[in-house]
Amino acid sequence: MIVLGIDPGLANCGFGVVTRRDGALAALDGGVVTTSASASPAARLARLQREVEALLDEHEPACVAMEALYFGLNVRSAFAVGQARGAVLAAAGARGLDCFDYTPQQVKGAVCGSGRADKGQVARMVQAVLRLPELPAPDHASDAPAWRSRTPTTRRR
Amino acid sequence: MIVLGIDPGLANCGFGVVTRRDGALAALDGGVVTTSASASPAARLARLQREVEALLDEHEPACVAMEALYFGLNVRSAFAVGQARGAVLAAAGARGLDCFDYTPQQVKGAVCGSGRADKGQVARMVQAVLRLPELPAPDHASDAPAWRSRTPTTRRR
Repeated sequence: MIVLGIDPGLANCGFGVVTRRDGALAALDGGVVTTSASASPAARLARLQREVEALLDEHEPACVAMEALYFGLNVRSAFAVGQARGAVLAAAGARGLDCFDYTPQQVKGAVCGSGRADKGQVARMVQAVLRLPELPAPDHASDAPAWRSRTPTTRRR
Repeated sequence: MIVLGIDPGLANCGFGVVTRRDGALAALDGGVVTTSASASPAARLARLQREVEALLDEHEPACVAMEALYFGLNVRSAFAVGQARGAVLAAAGARGLDCFDYTPQQVKGAVCGSGRADKGQVARMVQAVLRLPELPAPDHASDAPAWRSRTPTTRRR
């Protein structure tokens, strides 16, 4: 089963594609979709959605996992993250895909055994579990399903 | 010039299409896109986006006007409204349309001359300006560019 993980954001949207092969998890793709602050919010969200659609077409994941994070955000940030999530969710929903939300604490607990693990611990565990040659980075790609692209971190289109 | 106005929401998304003819404003279309709470957020956002795309295709507006309303919302509501806006903005952005945000106070001031006008005043002024046969309703359609559909309030598809 292939899962697309998304750490939603407008300027930087982390993503990772993970599959299970022979009982072990393996990373298929990952990186960050970036959009330029000089473009309009509508143009940036359209670009983000196009990139997510391209990932869905390329990897045909069975479902999408997203970071659920309005906890601890202020209203303005929640609004901005909500907009990025809306563009991603609409793309997934148009393909009939289920989307599952996980809090940062749930992800840390699952990966590290503690919901209070720091970013460094998460990155090292993700590197180990996915047998990545390097530590996942930057933060957003690490949050996504938590690893770093071995492809360039900015996607082609 | 044709303008599509949107009052973003997931359960109820108000919309209105207005044009200027012979120096006067005229309503071309309007109503509410509703999505079912029994569907997943992704499915609901996809449906909302499809409906907005259909409106953009049908009316070919020059731009989109949206209510900017994270003021006075709590974080959870801002997140939810943000998601609905994200789906709408991505659809507009994909067509290269500019989107303009207006606060409720700006709309009330423009329509009624006072940013503190109540919903009833706004509805009556909108009815007068657009020469609608009835008062615009419900609230969401009234907020959009503020009027009520003479077509059924729930859109066909």
